[in-house]
Amino acid sequence: MCNLKLTLEYDGTAYRGFQVQAEGPTIQGELERALREVLRQPVRVVGAGRTDAGVHALGQVVSFRCHWPHSATALGRALNAHLPEDIVVLEAEEAEDRFHARFSARSREYRYTVLNREAPPAIGRQYCYHFARKLDLEPMREACRLLIGEHDFASFAGAGERALSTVRCLEQAGCERDGDKIYFDFRARSFLPHMVRNLVGTLLQVGTGRIGVERFAAILRARDRGMAGPAAPARGLCLMKVYY
Amino acid sequence: MCNLKLTLEYDGTAYRGFQVQAEGPTIQGELERALREVLRQPVRVVGAGRTDAGVHALGQVVSFRCHWPHSATALGRALNAHLPEDIVVLEAEEAEDRFHARFSARSREYRYTVLNREAPPAIGRQYCYHFARKLDLEPMREACRLLIGEHDFASFAGAGERALSTVRCLEQAGCERDGDKIYFDFRARSFLPHMVRNLVGTLLQVGTGRIGVERFAAILRARDRGMAGPAAPARGLCLMKVYY
Repeated sequence: MCNLKLTLEYDGTAYRGFQVQAEGPTIQGELERALREVLRQPVRVVGAGRTDAGVHALGQVVSFRCHWPHSATALGRALNAHLPEDIVVLEAEEAEDRFHARFSARSREYRYTVLNREAPPAIGRQYCYHFARKLDLEPMREACRLLIGEHDFASFAGAGERALSTVRCLEQAGCERDGDKIYFDFRARSFLPHMVRNLVGTLLQVGTGRIGVERFAAILRARDRGMAGPAAPARGLCLMKVYY
Repeated sequence: MCNLKLTLEYDGTAYRGFQVQAEGPTIQGELERALREVLRQPVRVVGAGRTDAGVHALGQVVSFRCHWPHSATALGRALNAHLPEDIVVLEAEEAEDRFHARFSARSREYRYTVLNREAPPAIGRQYCYHFARKLDLEPMREACRLLIGEHDFASFAGAGERALSTVRCLEQAGCERDGDKIYFDFRARSFLPHMVRNLVGTLLQVGTGRIGVERFAAILRARDRGMAGPAAPARGLCLMKVYY
């Protein structure tokens, strides 16, 4: 048995999310099907981040154990021949026996992309959230700074959240403008479900001036999901990198 | 009658090209349909560049005359509500009476995007040409420099070319690497059909070392389409900007 680590890029548009579900295509489902075809043995993979329906990845990491007599690189190539064109193995490596894509991860980095101009996007419309109203970067940056460190993020937890604790530690939270685009970047050991999209939805309200930075701080302190803004749509979100 | 100028962004993946054809959806066809719906009068538009099937645009320009009692901006907004999501009006302006999107253009700028890495792309795969073999930038740059200025580009003309002259003047030709991507940029008053894709197809042969820069120069001098490399695929090409 070898322990393998794959780094994946995928376009989440057509999928119900990473994790296998009762209905609809998933990234994990497609990957396990391709592995079954290549390895001729059933394999269950573990992913570092369980991205939601419509969320993309440039650096998702999965691990699994299997019998494979050839090189990891050869497995990556074979998988790319069996995967649909919206899921790609970027790298395949043999990992140490104790490596586990989910539990060994030190932190995850997510980027949320907003297209901030009047006209909607035609090119790359699958990969950004179009927001036409003018956004002021400085208050959003200030609000991001309040998020860094350990906080109870209950106000930004997904509606169905049943985690034991809603305390998380954000190592990085910021936003920058690049032309018409605004990138929101977050890094943490782990995130609550929908946390990034809920944060961005509320940060955009700060950016339009609908709520002030003080109010944003109060929402964070309140630990009440009802106070935050709506979740930003899935298509703007991308799992960029997993650190080990 | 006013003379209107629209700047368009479009994802050419689903279209048979810019220009209206006997069969299949085209950018011009969709735009003229949307104009008919908004203006309630038939309108024929003129485009600055007749992009091929599958070619994209970030800055196509069209012009047309019509009766429209409101602002150009309002027309742009109305069109975006009637256009499919892969065609977007970025800007709508009133133009001088003598403005003509095609004949007034001083030059057109095209970018060809190559993804140069082993793994194919999942994100943005509609907008680049995946080329796995190692590419050496320096000889491709040298070959690009040979293209600048006035030349007979018959060796790089489309197979069906019936232009009176195959002489064109390239104001700019170059390539640069940005991570895994290589951008080929060309600017000229006008191009021959398929010229950019034929140039890139041959430049990639220079990049792999299959042909040398000397050979590339000989191909240009030969004025013989049979000598150049195959056309690079349409999806990597984008009309970036039209200068007036």
